[in-house]
Amino acid sequence: MEQSEIKQIVEKKVSMAKIASHGLGLLNFKQRNAILLSMADALEKNIKEIKFHNDIDVETAKSSGVSAELIDRLTLTDKRIQDMIDGVRNIVKQEDPIGEVIESRKIDGMSIEKIRVPLGTIAMIYESRPNVTVDAAALCIKSGNAIVLRGGSEAINSNKILAKIISSAGEAAGMPVGAVTFIDIVDRAAVSELVKMDDFIDLLIPRGSSAMIDYIKEHTKIPILSHGSGLCHTYIDKCANIDMAIKVAFNAKCQRPAVCNATETVLVHRDVADKVLPRLCKEYFNANCEVRGCKLTKAIVPEVKDATDKDWETEYHAKIVSIKVVNSIQDAINHINRYGSQHSDSIITDDKQRADKFLKEVDSAAVFHNVSTRLHDGGVFGLGAEIGISTGKMHARGAMGARELTSTKFVVRGNGNIRE
Amino acid sequence: MEQSEIKQIVEKKVSMAKIASHGLGLLNFKQRNAILLSMADALEKNIKEIKFHNDIDVETAKSSGVSAELIDRLTLTDKRIQDMIDGVRNIVKQEDPIGEVIESRKIDGMSIEKIRVPLGTIAMIYESRPNVTVDAAALCIKSGNAIVLRGGSEAINSNKILAKIISSAGEAAGMPVGAVTFIDIVDRAAVSELVKMDDFIDLLIPRGSSAMIDYIKEHTKIPILSHGSGLCHTYIDKCANIDMAIKVAFNAKCQRPAVCNATETVLVHRDVADKVLPRLCKEYFNANCEVRGCKLTKAIVPEVKDATDKDWETEYHAKIVSIKVVNSIQDAINHINRYGSQHSDSIITDDKQRADKFLKEVDSAAVFHNVSTRLHDGGVFGLGAEIGISTGKMHARGAMGARELTSTKFVVRGNGNIRE
Repeated sequence: MEQSEIKQIVEKKVSMAKIASHGLGLLNFKQRNAILLSMADALEKNIKEIKFHNDIDVETAKSSGVSAELIDRLTLTDKRIQDMIDGVRNIVKQEDPIGEVIESRKIDGMSIEKIRVPLGTIAMIYESRPNVTVDAAALCIKSGNAIVLRGGSEAINSNKILAKIISSAGEAAGMPVGAVTFIDIVDRAAVSELVKMDDFIDLLIPRGSSAMIDYIKEHTKIPILSHGSGLCHTYIDKCANIDMAIKVAFNAKCQRPAVCNATETVLVHRDVADKVLPRLCKEYFNANCEVRGCKLTKAIVPEVKDATDKDWETEYHAKIVSIKVVNSIQDAINHINRYGSQHSDSIITDDKQRADKFLKEVDSAAVFHNVSTRLHDGGVFGLGAEIGISTGKMHARGAMGARELTSTKFVVRGNGNIRE
Repeated sequence: MEQSEIKQIVEKKVSMAKIASHGLGLLNFKQRNAILLSMADALEKNIKEIKFHNDIDVETAKSSGVSAELIDRLTLTDKRIQDMIDGVRNIVKQEDPIGEVIESRKIDGMSIEKIRVPLGTIAMIYESRPNVTVDAAALCIKSGNAIVLRGGSEAINSNKILAKIISSAGEAAGMPVGAVTFIDIVDRAAVSELVKMDDFIDLLIPRGSSAMIDYIKEHTKIPILSHGSGLCHTYIDKCANIDMAIKVAFNAKCQRPAVCNATETVLVHRDVADKVLPRLCKEYFNANCEVRGCKLTKAIVPEVKDATDKDWETEYHAKIVSIKVVNSIQDAINHINRYGSQHSDSIITDDKQRADKFLKEVDSAAVFHNVSTRLHDGGVFGLGAEIGISTGKMHARGAMGARELTSTKFVVRGNGNIRE
């Protein structure tokens, strides 16, 4: 396909979504929930068809020899499909984010309210996992936003059938045509056209590799909420409960080693290093997790590999952890603020004052006291579902649910008030 | 000065501000307020010196033959200086935006709080009015942010002395060195370097011409909150109180015609056009305000000039108003959503249902019922002071005060919680 033709198709879809967003913004809570329930029912009726199309993607991926991990992310098992459907129904149960009065004042006889409104049109650019198609669409419809979806080429058949099912079911239940739009052009030129359409798109959410996110940041004027990288830390303080520290630090790395909220570096206060390190490293070794340590770590547990400065700035996405012994809580905080990605960082301590210092001085989207970094998640935090975890500081930070997909509006009612 | 030298100076200042932001973020409410009071006192003690330096800018501007309006914006009268000082003291009286608990949940034995934190380092790029130097710095210190200021060359001497007074007074009261930084390089290359420093700056606030804002949007990866243009409307409904309608529509244009929240287009329902237009136009004519009308307006008031389509999309910044007769409230809403800049729009009506329709369907930062658009203002809205009015939908929309200069952080406290 020629670039100009791609541009034309993308623009047509995106402008239809923009028009649909106006109609969608006028629907009430019940109407939006009815659309979501219709989508969930339609997905349930079409499980066989979803699996048929997903098989095509999985077989294509297998024959092209991609990693087992990618195949796993691509595959829609019965359980995953059911989770996806349950996810939509859970979003229905959430409160209405739209119309919420955030601030309210009476001044000079005027009522001044700040209320929550939809953003308008949201474009989501993502890779591999086809469930994102359904999760993202459901969160957008819940919050009154139209969505333009652009999934990865490896999941094209799965995404197409999922988008077709939910958009038809939504439209049958009163959703404006085009409010859920899937861009089925595999060519990457579709992305380079999409990011230029700032007249139609209010927010861009890229979710995928750093390279993809960087490309988009360089090439768009549309505001972005990006699900960035996670270089997370667990700091074991001198006042830690050692058993808890080992349990939490092990969970933070090994429960699921390749995800963004997994801990990459464990910092250990020198006063407890000889109590913590032999036991913690043993746990890691037993789980086949590679350990790279600083000199002091190596002095206590000679089996660990040497860590270099490079390790402190690496998100491994794998069963590898780095360990550093620090002289003080301040050293731990400084290390995290220097090397971390402001995603999720935890302190293990029984001293409340030291915990408060850490929670205040570590500048990350989520800071934890005696909790595994793996718990940074919209579902766990009670947001119902999440569209991603933002590592930026503007608009939304950390786990984002439907409420984070809204804007606000001042509504002022008076009685002929003028400026004197 | 060579570009490379400018880059070096700007980078040094900006990186110092970033370091200062860490220290500033640790100060409590009392400490930040003490800094602000010290600034206000120092300004009061140095009124003569401020006026001396301001005179240099005003004389230079006069001899270069700029407009009377620019001279006016540049001039610091005694009253304006006092207003600036009072503004700082008013900001002291405001609640602390930092540490506010926005959301709070108890889940699985964990306490999950979302709290307000400073953004970090904010850069403000602005033109002419020197009071912005003080207003912006005060709002940033209140919200725990470091600020990098870059004012226009025409106000360089005024800005330099104001920045010097407040940064010295702030530092004497415990403000980290560099937390208020002024870039005194007149060369525009300073701006082109500043916008590249996304490693140090968390938020960029341009305040000035559309051309300046567009340039910055094109050349930066830093998130922006822009004080955009204002193409505002007043719609006089068929159910309006005619006296109120005339009073409000006149005020909305003529109280201060060249500002962003002044009304540019008045829409009048055809059922009341012959009652409204003769009286309203007479008011405008008496105030030497040019009126450009549609054909139906002209048919009722022949003295008005012809409006063209161009008028509906023009922010006049002057004593000019356009008037269009519409067939219905829906036509008025459609006109506003098509031509408006989503800034401030008002309906004048005695019918609550029709008002609610307008307030819901007009997608602007502030929507008004029986209120002049001129009242869209952070001071009027009870925000204490404003750093601008955002016409974007992300992060903050409409009048922005200290609270809009913050981010959030999840603070999670548990008892050894892990992910199962």
